[in-house]
Amino acid sequence: MTVIDFSAFIGRLATASGETILPFFRTSLSIDDKSKTKDFDPVTEADRAAEAVMRRLIKASFPQHGIVGEEFGNEREDADYVWVLDPIDGTKSFIGGFPIWGTLIALLHKGSPVYGMMHQPFIGERFSGDNGSATYKGPSGERRLQVRRCASLSEATTYTTSPLLMNERDRAIFGRIEQGARLSRYGGDCYSYCMLAAGHVDLVVETELKPYDIAALIPIVTGAGGVVTTWEGKPAQGGGRIVAAGDARVHEEALKLLNQ
Amino acid sequence: MTVIDFSAFIGRLATASGETILPFFRTSLSIDDKSKTKDFDPVTEADRAAEAVMRRLIKASFPQHGIVGEEFGNEREDADYVWVLDPIDGTKSFIGGFPIWGTLIALLHKGSPVYGMMHQPFIGERFSGDNGSATYKGPSGERRLQVRRCASLSEATTYTTSPLLMNERDRAIFGRIEQGARLSRYGGDCYSYCMLAAGHVDLVVETELKPYDIAALIPIVTGAGGVVTTWEGKPAQGGGRIVAAGDARVHEEALKLLNQ
Repeated sequence: MTVIDFSAFIGRLATASGETILPFFRTSLSIDDKSKTKDFDPVTEADRAAEAVMRRLIKASFPQHGIVGEEFGNEREDADYVWVLDPIDGTKSFIGGFPIWGTLIALLHKGSPVYGMMHQPFIGERFSGDNGSATYKGPSGERRLQVRRCASLSEATTYTTSPLLMNERDRAIFGRIEQGARLSRYGGDCYSYCMLAAGHVDLVVETELKPYDIAALIPIVTGAGGVVTTWEGKPAQGGGRIVAAGDARVHEEALKLLNQ
Repeated sequence: MTVIDFSAFIGRLATASGETILPFFRTSLSIDDKSKTKDFDPVTEADRAAEAVMRRLIKASFPQHGIVGEEFGNEREDADYVWVLDPIDGTKSFIGGFPIWGTLIALLHKGSPVYGMMHQPFIGERFSGDNGSATYKGPSGERRLQVRRCASLSEATTYTTSPLLMNERDRAIFGRIEQGARLSRYGGDCYSYCMLAAGHVDLVVETELKPYDIAALIPIVTGAGGVVTTWEGKPAQGGGRIVAAGDARVHEEALKLLNQ
């Protein structure tokens, strides 16, 4: 099998989407009354514009590839190579002005994510991975991403975007994780998985993810030495209830608690 | 009364503390086993080093001023001018690698905060205010900070660092706010108040704050046109249970719910 190096092309996608999104971030609505601006939703506008830009670039370079995106639906999703796009993961952080949202770009080969990037254009950070390794580029330079060791849940820092996003049953199950962990924190969306890949966070547990919320993060987490599956221990690229850990021991312990 | 313009000096404090803290942020402990590094706590080290640097600069320039800080206690706290320092507000974000912590520098005159700055050195953002106006400097330039209008709690985006930080009674009271708000989000520490000043967030409700957690944020929020008090409607600089709003109508509605 010939493996094409898509990393330069994905870099171009990230640059183009970032330039498209940034003018919408922290759009000042402060002076106008909200009622005057209710037809203008900056996050939706930015999302659509950035996905359109990325789709154009992909079609021009790889017309035979498939594309899956939130805003403009699916095209050729049975192609060998399929791009999975989420221009703004973390829309609530985006709306609140917090710079912990990201653009997610995944490339699937025969259904499995082989390359992923999370781009945070306001800070200027790129987290990327190909399952075998993972890399960070940011304001302070470039380095390899590597998870940290963590022997047990009782030593783990755990993240979930918000328990308020979980249904009642899942929230109760998640409570077992929260009780067992050293520290439980909320917020983060894609940023949490990247901090896990970077060795600062030990566990991320979430529910109701879409495929485009997680596909790009799998090759990053796996490339950094971590594990990411559904709560049932199955492949994560379909989304749903997801558990990611830096250390396999914490992943195993979390799976047990989630399936008690 | 002669009012001294302290803004250039506070800029120097921010630059010096940022340079001191940054080498500790995202310190890679990933390869080493945690047990080997348990005596090294990067956030405490960074906190102490940055407070020491700021104290040295203040003493050299204003030996007659008082200083209040978390790490090295209080000196001359009955002086006319007192500096209130919190090198890393948001230590849990810092530990998790999330860039939404900040350095808080406040100047009190006869007990009231007259100037405040929040500095996020990783992103390179400075939020400052003097009660009369407030300013942002960041990667995309400089602009005036101004809160946005919000007619009622039902339209408000509200932030609290974490409901897990509240005692049971306060959490129940906070529940009324959460029920009434359009969107409730967790996390943020000082960053939430700055996003409120910038017009992206409408309400911040917190408990158990120390004076150094809030003093610097008051002149920023007030300077941007917002309101910040205790849950009882009293001056906020002493810390405790704090409520900040961009629009006075939301502040009033929140106070009512918090004191039912």
